[in-house]
Amino acid sequence: MKVGFVGLGGMGSAMVESIAAAGHEVVVWNRARARADALRGKIARVADSPAEVARAAEVVVSMVADDAAVEAVTLGGSGILHGLAAGAVHVSSSTISVALSDELAREHAARKQGYVAAPVFGRPEAAAQRQLWVVAAGAAPDLDRCAPIFDAVGRGATRVGERPSMANSVKLAGNFVIAAMLETLGEAFALALKSGVSAETFCEVFIQVFARSPIFEGYAKRIAAEAYEPAGFTARLGTKDLRLVLGAADAREVPMPIAAVVHGQLLAALAQGRGHLDWSALARFAAERAGIHPTK
Amino acid sequence: MKVGFVGLGGMGSAMVESIAAAGHEVVVWNRARARADALRGKIARVADSPAEVARAAEVVVSMVADDAAVEAVTLGGSGILHGLAAGAVHVSSSTISVALSDELAREHAARKQGYVAAPVFGRPEAAAQRQLWVVAAGAAPDLDRCAPIFDAVGRGATRVGERPSMANSVKLAGNFVIAAMLETLGEAFALALKSGVSAETFCEVFIQVFARSPIFEGYAKRIAAEAYEPAGFTARLGTKDLRLVLGAADAREVPMPIAAVVHGQLLAALAQGRGHLDWSALARFAAERAGIHPTK
Amino acid sequence: MKVGFVGLGGMGSAMVESIAAAGHEVVVWNRARARADALRGKIARVADSPAEVARAAEVVVSMVADDAAVEAVTLGGSGILHGLAAGAVHVSSSTISVALSDELAREHAARKQGYVAAPVFGRPEAAAQRQLWVVAAGAAPDLDRCAPIFDAVGRGATRVGERPSMANSVKLAGNFVIAAMLETLGEAFALALKSGVSAETFCEVFIQVFARSPIFEGYAKRIAAEAYEPAGFTARLGTKDLRLVLGAADAREVPMPIAAVVHGQLLAALAQGRGHLDWSALARFAAERAGIHPTK
Amino acid sequence: MKVGFVGLGGMGSAMVESIAAAGHEVVVWNRARARADALRGKIARVADSPAEVARAAEVVVSMVADDAAVEAVTLGGSGILHGLAAGAVHVSSSTISVALSDELAREHAARKQGYVAAPVFGRPEAAAQRQLWVVAAGAAPDLDRCAPIFDAVGRGATRVGERPSMANSVKLAGNFVIAAMLETLGEAFALALKSGVSAETFCEVFIQVFARSPIFEGYAKRIAAEAYEPAGFTARLGTKDLRLVLGAADAREVPMPIAAVVHGQLLAALAQGRGHLDWSALARFAAERAGIHPTK
Repeated sequence: MKVGFVGLGGMGSAMVESIAAAGHEVVVWNRARARADALRGKIARVADSPAEVARAAEVVVSMVADDAAVEAVTLGGSGILHGLAAGAVHVSSSTISVALSDELAREHAARKQGYVAAPVFGRPEAAAQRQLWVVAAGAAPDLDRCAPIFDAVGRGATRVGERPSMANSVKLAGNFVIAAMLETLGEAFALALKSGVSAETFCEVFIQVFARSPIFEGYAKRIAAEAYEPAGFTARLGTKDLRLVLGAADAREVPMPIAAVVHGQLLAALAQGRGHLDWSALARFAAERAGIHPTK
Repeated sequence: MKVGFVGLGGMGSAMVESIAAAGHEVVVWNRARARADALRGKIARVADSPAEVARAAEVVVSMVADDAAVEAVTLGGSGILHGLAAGAVHVSSSTISVALSDELAREHAARKQGYVAAPVFGRPEAAAQRQLWVVAAGAAPDLDRCAPIFDAVGRGATRVGERPSMANSVKLAGNFVIAAMLETLGEAFALALKSGVSAETFCEVFIQVFARSPIFEGYAKRIAAEAYEPAGFTARLGTKDLRLVLGAADAREVPMPIAAVVHGQLLAALAQGRGHLDWSALARFAAERAGIHPTK
Repeated sequence: MKVGFVGLGGMGSAMVESIAAAGHEVVVWNRARARADALRGKIARVADSPAEVARAAEVVVSMVADDAAVEAVTLGGSGILHGLAAGAVHVSSSTISVALSDELAREHAARKQGYVAAPVFGRPEAAAQRQLWVVAAGAAPDLDRCAPIFDAVGRGATRVGERPSMANSVKLAGNFVIAAMLETLGEAFALALKSGVSAETFCEVFIQVFARSPIFEGYAKRIAAEAYEPAGFTARLGTKDLRLVLGAADAREVPMPIAAVVHGQLLAALAQGRGHLDWSALARFAAERAGIHPTK
Repeated sequence: MKVGFVGLGGMGSAMVESIAAAGHEVVVWNRARARADALRGKIARVADSPAEVARAAEVVVSMVADDAAVEAVTLGGSGILHGLAAGAVHVSSSTISVALSDELAREHAARKQGYVAAPVFGRPEAAAQRQLWVVAAGAAPDLDRCAPIFDAVGRGATRVGERPSMANSVKLAGNFVIAAMLETLGEAFALALKSGVSAETFCEVFIQVFARSPIFEGYAKRIAAEAYEPAGFTARLGTKDLRLVLGAADAREVPMPIAAVVHGQLLAALAQGRGHLDWSALARFAAERAGIHPTK
């Protein structure tokens, strides 16, 4: 397949190498030309603009830094939009706003061009080893056409829907999960450290109990199934534990804003007579705050 | 070994079965006698009080609901404290406050009794299958004596320090990590759902990208090593992503308090000229807020 | 009236002077005797213990630092409890926990002694000028007996209920309001400063628009009356404004955690179809989270 | 003076009446013509577009709902920008984003038109009684020209700077202060209510102690002066009180997210060795998080 690629940062370059290694003919463009030239020998050609890349390809992948960069390489004067043939597909893999993704969908549709949002999870090294996970959304025929590319860079892909920006939402939700875990770990390590426990020791416990165990997977499934009764561990007991966490944190002078938020949500559950539910019902409460009604 | 066990809820009963199955002679007590009687045939004897259990054992494990229950079975009139021989060890496995654990340590020490805090991670089913993870703290000789019991119920144990309450801190920090993940998942699912993505689909992405990947383990190690430079993904880029998350959440009317907290911490990092650090430096910021200075 | 006074910090000393100036005979005790001696000439006598103060008085006021100090001067060996005559009244003016206040109520009741909780709002200078505001709770006859004392130190008093600890709750809620305003002002000043506005200028606006206007009084009355419809300013418009606040804060790198919390609560209101209510319905949402149902 | 006015909602109509009553000749436009016609007799003329209003006036005030409306009446095809003479002034009184205000400043400057941002605090009734407070920013000569208008609608005005968007920042910060107070009151009332105190009683205390007292004014001045030492009430004591607040809230099942945030900030201060500062230093901590260094 003739594949265009726009944006050769660490991730983009690694993806291009994997796509080329899979036997596709790749034409690239990068704002700083040197990074494109560095790929010579592996790729077919370095184009002079995103539009030129688009003219030469059936599928053009863009992987750039942010909304402004995506706008520039897509909607700008010599952008992808102005070179892509009707029926060809633009795959936007950048982490961008849902709003811009919706706008790109409109613009491409107006020109009968395909548009797929397909952000990826993983580091550049994962891209080089076909170990990314792709989250894709768009029209089914467009997704089918892109499948060989996803296969070239990833160990798997999840199709999340027909509206392209749904994939952007999932990517953002995923990055939020990482950031929330980092802040959570930060608070947990701080509590452990001020209790005299070494960082290495707490790290070992975290890895044994959480990182290498099916606990988070089990809870995610419980949430997806809305299986909050009978409880494995009640919200009431969870509230007690969070109270103890905050008590220990207070005594050791460890601010734990995430713990305070979680305690507040659990306390609200108790106040509303729902302390008997499994504490994973925190997800139900979050859904209700967002106006989502339980389906079960 | 002669093992006493006080507290036969779901977890306690499962632990007793595993300890007995490992060949130890077990004497038990439970507030509601019926649950103790149900174990007949597997155990040596049902005692009439925690003190009587203690008199019959080299090591007494207690596993009850909360601080009040631990006080009752330990410090109360016919509590463990009043039956345990000098040199014998009380292993407190309940999830209790650090303050009570410190008090128990003082009381046992005053009677030359050993005291170990050894809360566990895992559900009763895990206890029945020797799959708990034990977090233990206490004097090394006491921990050595308890090792066969930990071995009988768990797939492993981490010794976190000499002061028993250090284990309670770690248990609380661990339960906080679970609760924080539940709230985080709740917010992430809500955003996905209101973006039109099904719960099953988002669950699949979570499992593939997070639950079954080494990503959290990698970040925990980075935090333990305080390896924030060079950055794999900068706090500046993380701030951008959290801004996009909150923008999408705002447009879809999804309150995301955890995301708001994390965004705020990242923004503070930027304001203080630290946007170039890896976003896992959220842990460094949390530590600094707690008055912990970087060691590297 | 014969008045006893225990605790002569800045506030206690100022209160004693005002009580003595009103013509009452005052006997005092302070842990550090020097502060008591400094009042000679204004007071009747320096006693050797809180119990001795209590024996000499119809009403004993205590004003000390915290829960531990109140326990010491009340329940301790030579505490107020052990000197107070049946029928005499202990007025606890310290800012203490609701739990301890409830305990004091039980202990005094068991001895047929009166017990009133009467924390005050204001600084020591206000006490010296009879400008405190007293928040009192207890049995009506006990409150009646204390009225001359309240009159001696304050410009007014509010009787909040019969259960003494209700006054402690109100005092705590009041101090929370101050602290919340301080944090709010901190965030608002930071946004103004990073926008180039001087602190003096922003201070002037705050004083003109808020501190010297009836705006907060008006909103408090609206909340007490649960008058959320018709709206003066809708939650929907408020959400828009908070979005603009957070947008400006993000652009200027000003973390505003309070703004983030408020935005989240407003967003939840919108998601639940209540954007048409006056934005002061934030109070209704807070009440509902606490399990309080609207009365109107 | 010939004054143009665009936007005749409740606030706009009241302002027009006050401006006309002050003797100015007013030309108006409103999207829904009926509201403009309702002012006949008080005003000079109803124009057919914002541009036509602008052509007829030395100063044009716009007061519309949001960013989109301001863009429409200013930058749109028949917007103010296209009718305003060089040297004439556009006064934007709407509550809009800082970003849009900066854009308007650029657009007007490019046409040598004056641009002033002058949002107001107060309800429509205040506008009718010349009781608004105006917060204005722009070039001094432009502000001078607008002074008679500010005088016609308000009891006073604060000039906050030369860059127009500074006034928008201050308006947003002010609306944030209101919203934060509403949420704070909500949490405080909830705690009081669940403690058995009536809403009317708590309202009375709030009014006496806060709304009609100089307490907030005093704290704002302390913050503007960065006068955190010597402390009137230390951060350490404040932390104790917030701990008691959260303890009472926990016992009564009252989620108090604002209290949790404030407690966390105070705890961080303690952890960093600053518990001796006045608790209004919460503002210093907020400033530091935003990268603002103390000037004193």
